[in-house]
Amino acid sequence: MALRDTHVTMAHGGGGRAMRDLIDEVFTSVFQPPGMEDQARLMEASLQQPGARLAFTTDSFVVTPLEFPGGDIGTLAICGTVNDLAVGGARPLWLSAAFIIEEGCEIALLRRIVASMAAEAARAGIRIVTGDTKVVERGKGDGVFITTAGVGVIPPGLDLGARHIQPGDVVIVNGVLGDHGATILAARGDLALSVDLNSDCAGLGHLMQAALTAAPDLRAARDCTRGGLASALNELAAEAGVAIELDETRLPLRPEVVGLCELLGLDPLYLANEGRLVLFCPPDQAGGLVAALRSLPHGEGACIIGKTLPAPAGRVTLRTAFGGARLVDMLIGEQLPRIC
Amino acid sequence: MALRDTHVTMAHGGGGRAMRDLIDEVFTSVFQPPGMEDQARLMEASLQQPGARLAFTTDSFVVTPLEFPGGDIGTLAICGTVNDLAVGGARPLWLSAAFIIEEGCEIALLRRIVASMAAEAARAGIRIVTGDTKVVERGKGDGVFITTAGVGVIPPGLDLGARHIQPGDVVIVNGVLGDHGATILAARGDLALSVDLNSDCAGLGHLMQAALTAAPDLRAARDCTRGGLASALNELAAEAGVAIELDETRLPLRPEVVGLCELLGLDPLYLANEGRLVLFCPPDQAGGLVAALRSLPHGEGACIIGKTLPAPAGRVTLRTAFGGARLVDMLIGEQLPRIC
Repeated sequence: MALRDTHVTMAHGGGGRAMRDLIDEVFTSVFQPPGMEDQARLMEASLQQPGARLAFTTDSFVVTPLEFPGGDIGTLAICGTVNDLAVGGARPLWLSAAFIIEEGCEIALLRRIVASMAAEAARAGIRIVTGDTKVVERGKGDGVFITTAGVGVIPPGLDLGARHIQPGDVVIVNGVLGDHGATILAARGDLALSVDLNSDCAGLGHLMQAALTAAPDLRAARDCTRGGLASALNELAAEAGVAIELDETRLPLRPEVVGLCELLGLDPLYLANEGRLVLFCPPDQAGGLVAALRSLPHGEGACIIGKTLPAPAGRVTLRTAFGGARLVDMLIGEQLPRIC
Repeated sequence: MALRDTHVTMAHGGGGRAMRDLIDEVFTSVFQPPGMEDQARLMEASLQQPGARLAFTTDSFVVTPLEFPGGDIGTLAICGTVNDLAVGGARPLWLSAAFIIEEGCEIALLRRIVASMAAEAARAGIRIVTGDTKVVERGKGDGVFITTAGVGVIPPGLDLGARHIQPGDVVIVNGVLGDHGATILAARGDLALSVDLNSDCAGLGHLMQAALTAAPDLRAARDCTRGGLASALNELAAEAGVAIELDETRLPLRPEVVGLCELLGLDPLYLANEGRLVLFCPPDQAGGLVAALRSLPHGEGACIIGKTLPAPAGRVTLRTAFGGARLVDMLIGEQLPRIC
């Protein structure tokens, strides 16, 4: 056991033995990447099929607090990138993980985060194959920031994307909205609130695979992270050149989340989710798609929430319980900083 | 022109319109990634050749100051990842770029960094295809941190790696050592030093391609970044199970760098480089390899600096000008924090 330190020091970022010990003991002993070179060298038969495409995505994670009910920054860093791959129809293959650690960070905390990452990666069937660590001085970071990049393979013939969305398509989500955002908000402890909520953070590759089987004409999917369902729908409506109409009576919202939002003047449609997909399919496949999702973990709450209309392009509206309609615009700024 | 702000605010990280404007104007208008989805979808014929392998690597960059003579954090973020790919024999294909921006960061500075990245990526023949931005509060970051991940293709039959290094191999570098580390040190301005130095920061893919042609039995290559030549050689000697003996009289060092090191009690062998490779090849191919490197930009100073010996495994020594020998051990901590 070479690593005697309990907290990260600047020496752990210097390229010498202290860094090597930290990397070996805390990271590579758990992730077990292939090889010891500076890069991973990989191949997969599926990637060499004619017509297969490679999917490539990245996200940085700066959530605060680092640990919260239902997950931690490590869970997020895996699920976020796995889900970005999955919504394009890609099967996740390989992941990179880069850590920017603040001097003074507890090594026990790093170990817990790394354990979360390894467990989540195993669940998602993705391998963490390469990584990096840097250390910044106290007051120049915030515990730890993690950046993951993911590589996946999109099978031949599969082409999901906003441009395939048609007027008349049905809009589906896989469960209640806003749990992640509300959980983080409560976990910050600025409010004297005790809410029984957990982040919805989860890898959703299995739901996407089921959706593709149940709805062969699935048009597009998107994960509703930062900016919530509303921001995802605004982007999709603009890219697709359609209008989207949500039905307020069908929106799956937990009373605790609605209550918290009312108290704080927030709108749950803009709250971040880390385990929620929005999917678009033709009406005749919607029932089968919802049923398929409901049979799986993290899909139990799946339901239809609205439909697409030919015009006005890019417009998202909510048809209220009283028969009125209100615009669901894109946020200008942010509801909650550092939510993921 | 939607972006009227001169400095980054927390709103630019919130997932709404302000973030979208920042990303569109500062990042995607310059990088021009393919498609507008959350992930890039790509393929390359070379990746589908039988026997080809995919190379995948990542690095975070936290250098301070963000701009310095000879480059900036953006140049580093491209060159570092391109070089990690190149030393494994991979042709760089695609890059991801994730930005963690501190509230208050000047947008003009971001634009300069992004321009550096685009120029350097063009030089290296790699495309920035996907990215992310996050914003953290003032005092929780330091201007901007960048994490890049790179995907490349290793052609069929090419297998470079430390394990191929043999006793009797020749050790070659492509130019003077320590310029990057010395430049950053001087640029911090803590010292009342005026040194006429520039970072050696450069993409080295072209040198690796030339090396592979000139030395068909090239064993391994490594870029000598954080921790310098000494740290790279210690890792390679350990992985290869050989000893490495350097010849002090042959080490290419600029008098300004030697002078700065003497003044500050540093050892130039541990200074970071961002455009320096160390290469291993059989003795009969060394002359051709050095000549090939010398004919190319960033290779003009190429020279032989030592050789490998059968034992003791993992040991790196320096044969001094006076005929003595001293151990070139791995550093315990760091010489210089946040050098890359």
